[in-house]
Amino acid sequence: MNIAAKNLIDRRARLLGPNVSTFYEEPVHIVRGEGVWVWDAEGNKFLDCYNNVPHVGHCHPKVVEAICQQAGTLNTHTRYLHEGILDYVEALTDTFADPLNTAIMTCTGSEANDIALRMARGITGNTGVIATDHTYHGNTMAVSQLSCTNPPPDRWDNVAFVPAPDSYRPLGGEPGMAHAQAFAAEVEKAIADLKARGHGLAAMIICPYFANEGFPTLEKGWLQPAIDAVRKAGGIVIADEVQPGFGRLGTDFWGHQKAGFLPDVVTMGKPMANGHPVGGVVTSMDIMSAFRKNFRYFNTFGGNPVSAAAAHATLKVVQEEGLMENARTVGDYARDGLRRLAETHACIGDVRGSGLFFGAEMVLDRETRAPATAFTKKIANAMRQKGVLLNFLGIHYNALKIRPPLPFTKEQADILLERLDEALHETPLEP
Amino acid sequence: MNIAAKNLIDRRARLLGPNVSTFYEEPVHIVRGEGVWVWDAEGNKFLDCYNNVPHVGHCHPKVVEAICQQAGTLNTHTRYLHEGILDYVEALTDTFADPLNTAIMTCTGSEANDIALRMARGITGNTGVIATDHTYHGNTMAVSQLSCTNPPPDRWDNVAFVPAPDSYRPLGGEPGMAHAQAFAAEVEKAIADLKARGHGLAAMIICPYFANEGFPTLEKGWLQPAIDAVRKAGGIVIADEVQPGFGRLGTDFWGHQKAGFLPDVVTMGKPMANGHPVGGVVTSMDIMSAFRKNFRYFNTFGGNPVSAAAAHATLKVVQEEGLMENARTVGDYARDGLRRLAETHACIGDVRGSGLFFGAEMVLDRETRAPATAFTKKIANAMRQKGVLLNFLGIHYNALKIRPPLPFTKEQADILLERLDEALHETPLEP
Repeated sequence: MNIAAKNLIDRRARLLGPNVSTFYEEPVHIVRGEGVWVWDAEGNKFLDCYNNVPHVGHCHPKVVEAICQQAGTLNTHTRYLHEGILDYVEALTDTFADPLNTAIMTCTGSEANDIALRMARGITGNTGVIATDHTYHGNTMAVSQLSCTNPPPDRWDNVAFVPAPDSYRPLGGEPGMAHAQAFAAEVEKAIADLKARGHGLAAMIICPYFANEGFPTLEKGWLQPAIDAVRKAGGIVIADEVQPGFGRLGTDFWGHQKAGFLPDVVTMGKPMANGHPVGGVVTSMDIMSAFRKNFRYFNTFGGNPVSAAAAHATLKVVQEEGLMENARTVGDYARDGLRRLAETHACIGDVRGSGLFFGAEMVLDRETRAPATAFTKKIANAMRQKGVLLNFLGIHYNALKIRPPLPFTKEQADILLERLDEALHETPLEP
Repeated sequence: MNIAAKNLIDRRARLLGPNVSTFYEEPVHIVRGEGVWVWDAEGNKFLDCYNNVPHVGHCHPKVVEAICQQAGTLNTHTRYLHEGILDYVEALTDTFADPLNTAIMTCTGSEANDIALRMARGITGNTGVIATDHTYHGNTMAVSQLSCTNPPPDRWDNVAFVPAPDSYRPLGGEPGMAHAQAFAAEVEKAIADLKARGHGLAAMIICPYFANEGFPTLEKGWLQPAIDAVRKAGGIVIADEVQPGFGRLGTDFWGHQKAGFLPDVVTMGKPMANGHPVGGVVTSMDIMSAFRKNFRYFNTFGGNPVSAAAAHATLKVVQEEGLMENARTVGDYARDGLRRLAETHACIGDVRGSGLFFGAEMVLDRETRAPATAFTKKIANAMRQKGVLLNFLGIHYNALKIRPPLPFTKEQADILLERLDEALHETPLEP
């Protein structure tokens, strides 16, 4: 590591405290970004195959222009009337099926999920919540209770966890709808557990793409048995679209549309305004009214004119530049490339994903499917050294996580594949 | 109300749901802001005597420039190294006494208070929290538990409330340190109540200026007996500086400095980046380490390069343009003016405040001090019609709340005073 980076790490420890994590053994000191490229302080160029926050590309000129124009005109809050939030919410809710046509704008996805939990409480009168045992929904005190990847020290008794779906090693051994039924049975067990603890079911909250769980390959309708169990118990379904939303999956604008179900509440965050702090909750008027009646809520910065302008510009760019379509074609192309790599690299156990959110699960042995966790981490670090930023996640932390800004091209996918081929050749496959 | 405003209100109800509050009987549709002035859609100009979020003035060119410059260069998160957050945290913590020298950047004051509660839990091992019975600390599920002004439907049993300090009607009847002792006795009672419910004391959280409580006039050191009681019980003190911070009080950069005590944790928000969604928590390395050890925390947008640039530019403007000094001199001048108005308007029972956060308590009768709540609301609405934006708050909602952007001038204070004189003459003093 160079001295300048070492100095920054020391300053971080002094000013921000311990355990403030960075990516990679040699953290990257990024100073500039443009499209799918970023540059470090020494002028090295990196292909960004990881960041979903700069959804339409780092520093997209139309988003930057919208922010600058509105920041120089007015920034205030929703206790005054302003058209910006209304125009945006209209455009945003147009991407959803009825009755999902009202919204709250927040500053983060965490705030959005924090509200969604209260919406579930408001509409059902119940308190129990189901999540998977390998998820993360955000950082507030309440929302962090849903986390098994970043668990809180005290666990509230109103949360029950179900095993994260794993299409490569399906629960019960059978893939497809048998797996779906096995998952639904776990949801029913969780409902009974919550009931035994005195909690009626308020909600099941899931990422409809199961992103942190390693984005298993699940057919459309796979979630229906679990959703039926939730609704039968009086609960609602919250779709956390922070990761799969806004066209990233290529085939559908939202993860729940790809999964083939209609959630009661949808939450969103990271890519919503290309990095400007914006999150949101979309739901039906019934649920919104139940929330607004039971909880007084105001968010000073939420839906302010600059945030609304940034979010609206981002949405327009996705739609006008055909970025969902691009995600589909380039994502398909890149996955084909990964499958070709699998022909020469036995460590690639499974290639999966949708649009520009995909990866490959690394295994020590294709027969046993034993996760190559340490190896996967080495690959991510090796790629960083080769100028390609990606990462890893999943139940066993052995799935490469490839999730570039949406203007990613086939030529850039070729760079990714070429460097990955090298890294896989150069890195010994060890447990 | 004009048709355009009515249409916007209808669109809000349809897109945002019910109970999304606006200010004033005739809500203002602001489209442009500059310094302490805002303009509505019809070109009417308003003197902004209310908004603390545009702390250094609406659309301050240096803050806008910092946002534009950084938004066009790079916006990413703290898992990469970046100097922006470090330079800002260094400058920010320089405004605090030791050992308050580490920080977490968040997106909102609510997120900051949500963290502060977990810091208290982490360092003390206790769960009980004390707040006043007329406060508001934010909108997350956990933080909304501290609110009596926006109460949640289910109240957790780890929160105890103490009567909000009222210097105009002091607890026990005596002002000054007798009042302080009476307040401390209430804190001791709350500690005992929490203990009886099984909660050791984690923290007392207060706005050191008691802004929502109606900013009572309290001498330096007034809080010491209460703080002593908190510390004796093993708790920490959290100062919520969302409203008084960043020089607004004129005499001191932070409310706790004016109040004469050193908190363990300080939270901040609204004015921090002049409207860009930024909040923060400042504390000692001991408490930060206890938090970081007990709770894994990452905030995607928190401390991103654009947020850090906006916050840093705002801090620099406060410091380089002498805005704290301006708050002191113009605030003193405006309060003198209010006292002169009190000579002709018997409804003004008490003039108080500090720097550019001040007001006057409206009473039906100076002898009984009976609050003129309905009248105060009428005055706020009358002032809006006269082109001056202000509002009201306090235990009885009868204190005018005057809190303009810091570049407010004596000439602008004269406009405020002149219009207020008119409104007080024109509005009948009725219960």
